[in-house]
Amino acid sequence: MSVEGLPMAVPAPGLPARVRIYEVGARDGLQNEQAAVPTPVKAEFIRRLADSGLTTIEATSFVHPKWVPQLADAEELFPLVSSLPGVALPVLVPNRRGLERALALGAEHVAVFASATESFAKANLNRTVDESLAVFEPVVRHAKDAGVHVRGYVSMCFGDPWEGAVPLHQVARVCTALRDMGCDELSLGDTIGVATPGHVLELLHLLNEVGVPTNVIGVHFHDTYGQALANTLAALQHGVTTVDASAGGLGGCPYAKSATGNLATEDLVWMLHGLGIETGVDLGRLTATSGWMAERLGRPSPSRTVRALSHKEQ
Amino acid sequence: MSVEGLPMAVPAPGLPARVRIYEVGARDGLQNEQAAVPTPVKAEFIRRLADSGLTTIEATSFVHPKWVPQLADAEELFPLVSSLPGVALPVLVPNRRGLERALALGAEHVAVFASATESFAKANLNRTVDESLAVFEPVVRHAKDAGVHVRGYVSMCFGDPWEGAVPLHQVARVCTALRDMGCDELSLGDTIGVATPGHVLELLHLLNEVGVPTNVIGVHFHDTYGQALANTLAALQHGVTTVDASAGGLGGCPYAKSATGNLATEDLVWMLHGLGIETGVDLGRLTATSGWMAERLGRPSPSRTVRALSHKEQ
Repeated sequence: MSVEGLPMAVPAPGLPARVRIYEVGARDGLQNEQAAVPTPVKAEFIRRLADSGLTTIEATSFVHPKWVPQLADAEELFPLVSSLPGVALPVLVPNRRGLERALALGAEHVAVFASATESFAKANLNRTVDESLAVFEPVVRHAKDAGVHVRGYVSMCFGDPWEGAVPLHQVARVCTALRDMGCDELSLGDTIGVATPGHVLELLHLLNEVGVPTNVIGVHFHDTYGQALANTLAALQHGVTTVDASAGGLGGCPYAKSATGNLATEDLVWMLHGLGIETGVDLGRLTATSGWMAERLGRPSPSRTVRALSHKEQ
Repeated sequence: MSVEGLPMAVPAPGLPARVRIYEVGARDGLQNEQAAVPTPVKAEFIRRLADSGLTTIEATSFVHPKWVPQLADAEELFPLVSSLPGVALPVLVPNRRGLERALALGAEHVAVFASATESFAKANLNRTVDESLAVFEPVVRHAKDAGVHVRGYVSMCFGDPWEGAVPLHQVARVCTALRDMGCDELSLGDTIGVATPGHVLELLHLLNEVGVPTNVIGVHFHDTYGQALANTLAALQHGVTTVDASAGGLGGCPYAKSATGNLATEDLVWMLHGLGIETGVDLGRLTATSGWMAERLGRPSPSRTVRALSHKEQ
């Protein structure tokens, strides 16, 4: 798909020159499919994502297959893609057992997933926030001992379907705990998509105040209320250079009914390239990949950019 | 529909305290429907929009019915809504004849629609840019003489489906011409939705440089590539306080195939209220109105906020 010269690049002051896109479609996207996607299709999807220029592609999750049957093939999938040159392939590890499975396959990037709220910790992890942090502590330590890069996800940073507003100090406490146990980077999740730009900036400021530097912070916005890209712009203006997104807008969250719609990588790339920010991504190839995956899944991509560019092709 | 406390308000520095939403759904939205919406439904839609707190609602267009048959009922519709208290009801007037029809019904706000590009002027108006400006000049003068407020729309400010990139000085020339002939306000249209925030800021800066103050500028973004709200944030940061949007995301442009998806008013309101910016709009009522209209049109609203809030209701 040719998108030559699109979008037109007009830089804006105060923004980073380059952004790392942390691609979550293969994990966060596909774990939400009702029917598990066949392993070879997943592997081909990841290969195509890498071929479009993405260099951080979350591949799968080593949770117990009982909880996420869609990703029960982690052991089969990971070796099919783990030798892609120049591509980091983080995998989720919920506990010590998950980490051991990942390390046995040679994973070099892992991620733990914490919650900023008690309700979601209970729903997603069946533990209190502190209990879950206690579980992650030896996982992170062991991973760091093994020379592995660790990301700490924090869900429900901006709102919670059960608790409503989430106090920022609660988010800061979980972020600080994850940093203290050794997490190399954090991802701030707006799991139900309610955040707006001022809220994003307030959290980033508070994190800086409590000693979490911007360069270890990634943002993970959902487009539930259409706010993801505006929130991303605010985060970029604050200096954030890691943005999570999902190719074609795949995914959501199986444990939070109203959480639909990850920020689509293509919509993000359109804005970043429009701002003259480097991503290394070939937008045409990426859009073609999401179109290919949408065909496999039997429904159109929710990404506006994918739809608009596919329409142009016809 | 109750959306009490949603979204959570967290102001950001450097933004206006209040934004005027210029609602275009009843005109820009409904003129793109394949089948004309019955006049009483249009009137009820406008009444409900007013009831949700919108104070500027573009009502219809006095173009020749041959060109926009969907709005052929302008003469019947306008008197049904023209006495709504505290609501400005702008109408489009393409030429002297259209203006006379509007004035005869007591219209106090009219709008002319120019193009920044020759290709779109030809496609939409069947004239060159200069020929169309020559047509508008006596229309604007006559409207001003009659004490009527005049808006000048400028289409294709950021890209054109035929010409690609649009030189900013070309946009500035048309804006200046409209101001010089007496237009009280301008609306910068990203008719095909390709703009990104740096591009928006560059145009706003240039317009200020050539003497067009920010307080007469409105922005009109389309969500074709998902960029509308991020672009709006950039415009607000520049000081813009008038934002065009379409309830439920209705509309597009019948003469530009790839131009789909006006910015949904609900997605805009979510961001504005999230930023603590006053709009006077009751988001619950507005969402209910768009849900009601979607039922009349027989298809779901493309607004993410409308979908998310409707989902919450169930």
